[in-house]
Amino acid sequence: MPNPVSRRTFLGAAAGGAAASVAPRSVDAAERHLPVRLEKPLRVESLSTPALLIDLAAFESNLAKMAESLKARGVGLRPHAKTHKCPVIAHKQFELGAIGICCAKVSEAEVMTDAGINDILITSPVVTKEKIDRVIACAKRIGHLQMVVDNTKTAQDFNDAAAAAGIVLSVIIDLDTGTRRTGIAHGEPALGLGQLIAKLPALKFEGLQAYAGQIMHVKGYEKRKARSEETIAKAVDTRALFEKNGLEVAVLSGGGTGTFDVDSNIEGITDIQAGSYPFMDLQYRAIGDSNSDVYDYFDPSLFVLSTAISKPVEQLITFDAGYKSFSTDAMNPEFRNVTGVVYHWGGDEHGMVQLKEPSQPIALGDKFELMVPHCDPTVNLYDYYHPYREGMVHELWPIAARGRSQ
Amino acid sequence: MPNPVSRRTFLGAAAGGAAASVAPRSVDAAERHLPVRLEKPLRVESLSTPALLIDLAAFESNLAKMAESLKARGVGLRPHAKTHKCPVIAHKQFELGAIGICCAKVSEAEVMTDAGINDILITSPVVTKEKIDRVIACAKRIGHLQMVVDNTKTAQDFNDAAAAAGIVLSVIIDLDTGTRRTGIAHGEPALGLGQLIAKLPALKFEGLQAYAGQIMHVKGYEKRKARSEETIAKAVDTRALFEKNGLEVAVLSGGGTGTFDVDSNIEGITDIQAGSYPFMDLQYRAIGDSNSDVYDYFDPSLFVLSTAISKPVEQLITFDAGYKSFSTDAMNPEFRNVTGVVYHWGGDEHGMVQLKEPSQPIALGDKFELMVPHCDPTVNLYDYYHPYREGMVHELWPIAARGRSQ
Repeated sequence: MPNPVSRRTFLGAAAGGAAASVAPRSVDAAERHLPVRLEKPLRVESLSTPALLIDLAAFESNLAKMAESLKARGVGLRPHAKTHKCPVIAHKQFELGAIGICCAKVSEAEVMTDAGINDILITSPVVTKEKIDRVIACAKRIGHLQMVVDNTKTAQDFNDAAAAAGIVLSVIIDLDTGTRRTGIAHGEPALGLGQLIAKLPALKFEGLQAYAGQIMHVKGYEKRKARSEETIAKAVDTRALFEKNGLEVAVLSGGGTGTFDVDSNIEGITDIQAGSYPFMDLQYRAIGDSNSDVYDYFDPSLFVLSTAISKPVEQLITFDAGYKSFSTDAMNPEFRNVTGVVYHWGGDEHGMVQLKEPSQPIALGDKFELMVPHCDPTVNLYDYYHPYREGMVHELWPIAARGRSQ
Repeated sequence: MPNPVSRRTFLGAAAGGAAASVAPRSVDAAERHLPVRLEKPLRVESLSTPALLIDLAAFESNLAKMAESLKARGVGLRPHAKTHKCPVIAHKQFELGAIGICCAKVSEAEVMTDAGINDILITSPVVTKEKIDRVIACAKRIGHLQMVVDNTKTAQDFNDAAAAAGIVLSVIIDLDTGTRRTGIAHGEPALGLGQLIAKLPALKFEGLQAYAGQIMHVKGYEKRKARSEETIAKAVDTRALFEKNGLEVAVLSGGGTGTFDVDSNIEGITDIQAGSYPFMDLQYRAIGDSNSDVYDYFDPSLFVLSTAISKPVEQLITFDAGYKSFSTDAMNPEFRNVTGVVYHWGGDEHGMVQLKEPSQPIALGDKFELMVPHCDPTVNLYDYYHPYREGMVHELWPIAARGRSQ
C-alpha cells in the first residue's frame, strides 16, 4: 500500500501564532490525502474551538489492539472508512496489516482511490446508471474493488457496464441479516443471485457480506454474543448452500466494533468490517462488556475541544459546540476530565453545561475535551483532525471524504 | 453591497453527462463566494444523491415576503447567515434591502468578510484572545462590524485589542432573554455593562440584542405572540433604562422566523434577525399559525434529493440518505410529494421508508425530494446547494461557511 511520502507544510497562517490554530482553507484538493504539517507545533489549549482532536496514544493503541487480535485469530481486518473518512488513517490501518478498507458510498471510495488505496469493498448497494458507472471507473483505477449487489436487475446492469468498460468486476452479495435495510434474503434467494452472477461474464462472484448493524449496540456481552452467533450462523449456512452448489465463497465479510470478538471466532468468517474501533464513542462504551457496564476494550481517542463562552446564570456555563459540532442521533456529549457536570444541547452553536458538583473549576475561556456520542456522523462535520501527543499538535489530517455521502 | 460580478464556469466534469452531477472538488477557496455555473444545465433527477436542493420559486418568494413585510413596518431585516452559510444567498438578501447580516461565529464572519459583505453582527459571545483578535481583524476589513458582549471582563479585553489595532469597535450588549444560554441580565446588570462600554475609548456602544431562541418554536400563534411580547417588553424596558441614563440605544435587535410578525410590531425593535425564512423546515412548519396547525406563511424551499437503493422486504424501501445527510436533532424527514409513507432513520447512510399506502409507486432508482427537519444543521452537512427552476439546475452555490463553527 502506498504511504504518504511527502508531507505538506502549512505555512500560511502559521506565522501568526494564534491564527495558526485556524485550519487552512487553501489545501489543494489533490493533496487532501496527506497530513498537513504545521510549521510550528501547537498546544492543544491554543486551538481555535470547536476542534476535532485525536489523542494519538489511545488511537494508536486501538489500531494495534484490533490488528493484533484479528491476526491472532487468522481473520482479516477490513476497516470501515465511513467512520474516519481519512486517507491518512486508512494508510495507518494498512501499515498494521489491514487487507483492504470498506467504503459506504461511491464518492467515499473515489476519495480513497484518489489517495492510492488499492483494495476497497463498497458496502452499500447502488442502482442508478450514474453510480454504477462511477463504481466501474474506480474499479478500473485500483487493484481490487469489490461491489455489493443485492438484486438480479442490478447485477445485470453492473455486468453490462463492466463489459462495456472492458473489465471484470468483483462482486459480493449483500445479505439481509435482519436489519431489513439492505441485502437479499438468505438461502435460495441469495443462491439464485449468486448463480446469476456466476454466469455473467463481466462479473466475478467473490463472496457474501453479512453485516448486522442492529446487533452492534445490543447491551451486554452475552446478549450481543448470542444475537451475533445466531445471525452469522445463517450466513454460514448460506455459504454452505453456495458451496454445495459449486459456488466458491472466498469472502464472508461481517462483524463490527461491537461484535468483532464474537464474529472473528466463528468458522467461515473471513474478514471483519470494524469502523469505530480507532475512536470509540459514548454509544459504543454504553454497550457494556462481559464484566462491566462499559465497553472499554478500546479507549476513547476522539474528542471535541470546546470553550466556555458565557455564564448568564450561576448553575450553568455555555460552551461553543452544539448541533453543528456533534452528531445528535445518540446521547449527549460528556466531559472527558470533569465530573459533576451535565452537557445539555443549547442549539446549533452551543452546549449548556449544568454545574452540579464540578470536580474542577470551569471559567470563561477554559477549553475542555468532550467525548463524542457517535463518532461517524460527528467526524463528518469537520474538515480536519488535530492529532496530538503529549499535548502538542504537529500536523492536521484532512477528512478528505467529509460530506461524500453520494 | 458588492455583488458577484463574475461567475465561474464549472468545466471539469461537466462534459461527462452523469459525472457533471458531481459537485466539483477543485473550486478555489478564494472563489467559494461565487455561484459555480454549470457548462450544461442538469435535470434535478440526474443529480447524484444525496443532494441539497433549493426550489428557487419558493425560495425567492420567501426572500421577498420577509423583505416586504418588514419594510412595510419600517423595521430593518438583518438575516442570520448561520442558516445558509452562503455568500451567494447573503448577497441576494442585500439586493432585497437587508441592512446587514448576522453571523453566529467568528469563522463564519470571516467567510462573509472574504465575500465582500460589509455589515455584520456577530451574535454569539467570544472570550479568548485568539477569537477577540480575529473579530478585530474582520472589523478592520469591513465597513461596519458589530460584536456582542455580555460581561465586563470581555468588554475590557475587546477595548484593549481594538485600541492596540487602532480602531473603534461597535458593540452590542447581548441580553439574556430567558434562554439562560448567553447574555447579561436585564436592568441594572446590563446598564452597568453599558456604562462601562460607553467609557472605554476603543468601544462604541450601539445597542442591545434580545434574541429569544426558546420562543421561536412555541406552538400556536397566540401563545407565541404572548410569550414574545412579554420577553421583548423586558428588553424595551432595559432600553428605556439605558436612555434614561443618557446612553443612546441605536439598535434593539431580536426576533426570528418564528416571531418576526410579532416582534416587528413592537415599538423599539429596530431589526429582525430571522435565519430560516428562506428555506423553512419541518420544525418551523410544526409551530402552527393563528388559524392552522401548519406555519406556512413561508414555503419549504430546501430539500434533500435521495434515491431508493434497496428493497429487502415488501413493506420497506431503503433510501441513500441518513444521519450524514440530515440533521437529527428534530423530527424525521418527510417526503415532499408522496403521502402514505414514513421515513425512519436507517443509520449513518440510509433512511428506511415504510410503505403504508404510498400515493405513488416507488421503485429502485427513483429519486424523491425530502423535506428537512431542521435547516441550519442540515445545510452544514453539504458543500453546495443545487438551486433549480422548472426542474433544471444551472449553477451550484457553494456553502462557503460550512463547518465554520469556530
